[in-house]
Amino acid sequence: MMIDITQGVTAANGYRAGGVAAGISKPNKKDIALVINDGPLRNAAAVFTTNRFAAAPVGWSRHAIADGQLRAVVLNSGGANACTGAQGDADARAMAQATADAIGCGIDDVGVASTGLIGQLLPMPVVVAGIDEAARTATTSGGADAAQAIMTTDTVSKQAAYTSEQGWSVGGMAKGAGMLAPALATMLVVVTTDAQLSSAEAGSRLRMATSLSFERADADGCMSTNDTVILLANGASGVTPDLDEFQSALTAVCTSLAKQLIADAEGAEHSITVTVSSAASEQDALEVARAIARSNLFKCAIAGNDPNWGRVLASMGTTRASFDPDQVEVDFNGVTLFSHGELGAPRDQVDLHPYDVDVTIALNAGDATATIWTSDLTHGYVSENSDYSS
Amino acid sequence: MMIDITQGVTAANGYRAGGVAAGISKPNKKDIALVINDGPLRNAAAVFTTNRFAAAPVGWSRHAIADGQLRAVVLNSGGANACTGAQGDADARAMAQATADAIGCGIDDVGVASTGLIGQLLPMPVVVAGIDEAARTATTSGGADAAQAIMTTDTVSKQAAYTSEQGWSVGGMAKGAGMLAPALATMLVVVTTDAQLSSAEAGSRLRMATSLSFERADADGCMSTNDTVILLANGASGVTPDLDEFQSALTAVCTSLAKQLIADAEGAEHSITVTVSSAASEQDALEVARAIARSNLFKCAIAGNDPNWGRVLASMGTTRASFDPDQVEVDFNGVTLFSHGELGAPRDQVDLHPYDVDVTIALNAGDATATIWTSDLTHGYVSENSDYSS
Repeated sequence: MMIDITQGVTAANGYRAGGVAAGISKPNKKDIALVINDGPLRNAAAVFTTNRFAAAPVGWSRHAIADGQLRAVVLNSGGANACTGAQGDADARAMAQATADAIGCGIDDVGVASTGLIGQLLPMPVVVAGIDEAARTATTSGGADAAQAIMTTDTVSKQAAYTSEQGWSVGGMAKGAGMLAPALATMLVVVTTDAQLSSAEAGSRLRMATSLSFERADADGCMSTNDTVILLANGASGVTPDLDEFQSALTAVCTSLAKQLIADAEGAEHSITVTVSSAASEQDALEVARAIARSNLFKCAIAGNDPNWGRVLASMGTTRASFDPDQVEVDFNGVTLFSHGELGAPRDQVDLHPYDVDVTIALNAGDATATIWTSDLTHGYVSENSDYSS
Repeated sequence: MMIDITQGVTAANGYRAGGVAAGISKPNKKDIALVINDGPLRNAAAVFTTNRFAAAPVGWSRHAIADGQLRAVVLNSGGANACTGAQGDADARAMAQATADAIGCGIDDVGVASTGLIGQLLPMPVVVAGIDEAARTATTSGGADAAQAIMTTDTVSKQAAYTSEQGWSVGGMAKGAGMLAPALATMLVVVTTDAQLSSAEAGSRLRMATSLSFERADADGCMSTNDTVILLANGASGVTPDLDEFQSALTAVCTSLAKQLIADAEGAEHSITVTVSSAASEQDALEVARAIARSNLFKCAIAGNDPNWGRVLASMGTTRASFDPDQVEVDFNGVTLFSHGELGAPRDQVDLHPYDVDVTIALNAGDATATIWTSDLTHGYVSENSDYSS
């Protein structure tokens, strides 16, 4: 599928977006994003973090989307509004109210998402002024500004869009960088479409797409308090899509965004694709791939351009997946380093200098395959995460 | 209990030990350790890694100890002999044979343990020569040499011993540094005692001691292929110990060794004690403490002297332990930063410059408590683990 990574939430018709620098935590950094759905439909669906310390905006958005309808989504960087108590709840609600006032809708039609440091209250006068400005300046070509406004430690903004020959489009934006782990990868994502979909259809398609994309990205195994993926569907194209094509397009857009997140994970010097094949079940393949993707030792080895397959086996050996250790094969960038209990090619035959690294495991236990995308563990990761709040 | 960290496997009577530089992977680095039990009893017990890619020496030692009897343990650094196929199995057996020949016992009376890089065959002529020399030079005061010979990226050797007023002693040595995780922390440990214990008693006491010590140390969440903890009991004191005192002493020796391992974990700049109290069960307390101890983001924050309690909550929020998020309290070095859903003291009231960091969580859900020891995630960890095999 042709995915255009220069367009995002305003690729589809009937949406306006904007991003402004309100000054929440840094001067001149865009930090308020607004996505407005101008209809005709207001159908919406969302997937949220399963973290038990879900942030105040997650609690608000769960409430707002309960009826399957949203008119707008307001997002901020510069503060996660998580673990902020009753005042945090009030502030998330106040962000919805400010947005509702600015664009003329009900408070319950506004989703809210926040990202940044946990445990700090938002400077609400600044936030409200920023929301007003974003509402005034939102345009049908403002997707890129919105994508920039949700960046935190991201070094580039992330967008992806697809246009069907049937006349509808789907496009989205994402931010990630740290606390990237499945269920969900830490991220804020808004995807819009002008295809005609019910809220229920939007929900089932979104859950399928996230399970195959964001939930297979795992940068550092840390699950965020703020993960939010929202899909808006306004039917502005007047086209009821072929649902198979729509599902493929939505999954492709989400996969593009997920891979962009991993490629720009904090400190990443390699993007690593861990594929486990010939597993007894997809669940087994995922368990093994995740165990590898979460091994700090493996991820440090990749940072050092070291095809340390022993660390791959050591992490696989902690899983309960069905396989015979003597039947396993491990390949790095196409070179077989271990196979059926015996040493393979010398490790110096593997060149790990390219940014993209493929680690492929054959379990020889069945027909299932799954892939997890991760990044290496570098000095940059340590630097970014030991300096984050100071 | 008074633990002496200057003595190890030769603290108890009836043991000889030695450590020699055979030249397995580096010149002039002690790399073969030998612990010889001169009786009268040969009772022994062991706990091994549960990794499914257990190394060849683990397979051999499981076999050798099946009858509850060992005459000696031979250990090497400089190569893990893991994932080395049939040749690796033959090499582990050859190490036992060389030891048996050198000290005059049966091959099945020799335990073998190896540590170092996975996936590389040992240079057996060098290893066998080293075993011969270690057997010739082992003495009743050679514990310190043996402790040095099992070091890999350890910066200091680890020993601990206890002497009872009843006239018996227990002492041990350990190596760790990387791949430290529960079940077991990656480590080689030999503990000796001259108390009179049956093999069965030694086994049950050892399992209890490891569950409260090594299995509560978690430096990097990575489980090794080579973890081995062996207890030898020769009864040379002629004293049948009070079993409560013996259990306490064995646990204290193992706890001292476990804490020494964490304090010297790869790149560690802080030793972190994560204590979870008022949990509904000990299992809940352990689950929460482990989730925190495995959060890379939390561990990077500590490296940066940042009391980032938000990352503590985010990791707790991924667990299934019984607690109400609104009832939780988080303290760093005695300062309450979050309590009952609301912000506590400003984070700048916490001084994280001292090496030891105490993170205490009250779940307010019951009466159980558990502690996990971990270390921070530093540039040193990344450096050591991206350069390890190169």
